[in-house]
Amino acid sequence: MRVMGVDPGLTRCGIALVESGAGRSVVALDVDVVRTPSDMDLADRLLAVHTAAVHWINTHHPDVVAVERVFAQNQVSTAMGTAQAAGVVALAAAQNEIPVRFHTPSEVKAAVTGSGRADKAQVTSMVTRILGMQTRPRPADAADALALAITHCWRGPMLERMAEAERRAKAAQRHHQQRIAQARAAAQEVRK
Amino acid sequence: MRVMGVDPGLTRCGIALVESGAGRSVVALDVDVVRTPSDMDLADRLLAVHTAAVHWINTHHPDVVAVERVFAQNQVSTAMGTAQAAGVVALAAAQNEIPVRFHTPSEVKAAVTGSGRADKAQVTSMVTRILGMQTRPRPADAADALALAITHCWRGPMLERMAEAERRAKAAQRHHQQRIAQARAAAQEVRK
Repeated sequence: MRVMGVDPGLTRCGIALVESGAGRSVVALDVDVVRTPSDMDLADRLLAVHTAAVHWINTHHPDVVAVERVFAQNQVSTAMGTAQAAGVVALAAAQNEIPVRFHTPSEVKAAVTGSGRADKAQVTSMVTRILGMQTRPRPADAADALALAITHCWRGPMLERMAEAERRAKAAQRHHQQRIAQARAAAQEVRK
Repeated sequence: MRVMGVDPGLTRCGIALVESGAGRSVVALDVDVVRTPSDMDLADRLLAVHTAAVHWINTHHPDVVAVERVFAQNQVSTAMGTAQAAGVVALAAAQNEIPVRFHTPSEVKAAVTGSGRADKAQVTSMVTRILGMQTRPRPADAADALALAITHCWRGPMLERMAEAERRAKAAQRHHQQRIAQARAAAQEVRK
């Protein structure tokens, strides 16, 4: 599975491509940080991020795009811009019919370091080790994008299986309820 | 001036087209509300909003797109989706090289009703009166999109003039400081 991981942002947007193999093996294929100047118009900054995402998708053909879930509570001043950057990346994926999945920062930290409260340095060193890189990925946004892609390689298949199991359980429940209703209707018919 | 006003949202996104004439005369050319179901994937909802915005821009060729500025503080649960909807609309404008301008909800209320704290009903009735409409625009998102477009028709030219005056003042200041520096350098040269 080829995962494009995105740490969304307007000033710096990390984008990484990771391929998963057997078991937990993962290989980094590419990583970059898209930057836009803060004095640029918001619409033009979003255009730059969207253009970069489209370019990555067309170049690398990922199977899925994994994006960090942004919360309004964190860093109110930049949260809206970050959410908008995540939005145009998700749009780029949808325009190319590629599924988009979201993971929270603590899910990413827990997946790569084992602790949902790990700091940036811990995330970066675990990413460096997991991918067997010679040097640490920099800046932090690049490491975060790689961490996000790794997280999806590891959690994605399990999450899809869980969602599938849930769908089946619901279908079975609906089927069961229908049979009960039919049985009741038949019983009433007999009583008449 | 032809203004496309947008009240961004995922569940309901109001889009309106208003043309300004001499003085404060404004005419509504079109208004609609784009809806996406809440159980749809976020990326697909953003795609639907973006596609609608692109369609409006290509059909109506607005001179400017006016979007409501979203704040993270208001309604945290929906703020991120609203910001992302605003983001893909701004992107659609930037992709078509149309300038995007933002107005806050209180600026819009103040422009159309005279009070920044007017309620939705007051905004709707003033919009109906200003545009000389036979029936009230519904739902509220349609009225808000019209209000936003009217606001830009009235405030936009003034804001552009103020921005231009500020740019000129800054240029004049820079020029003045350069002349002072030159005069000082010349004076030092004479003293030597």
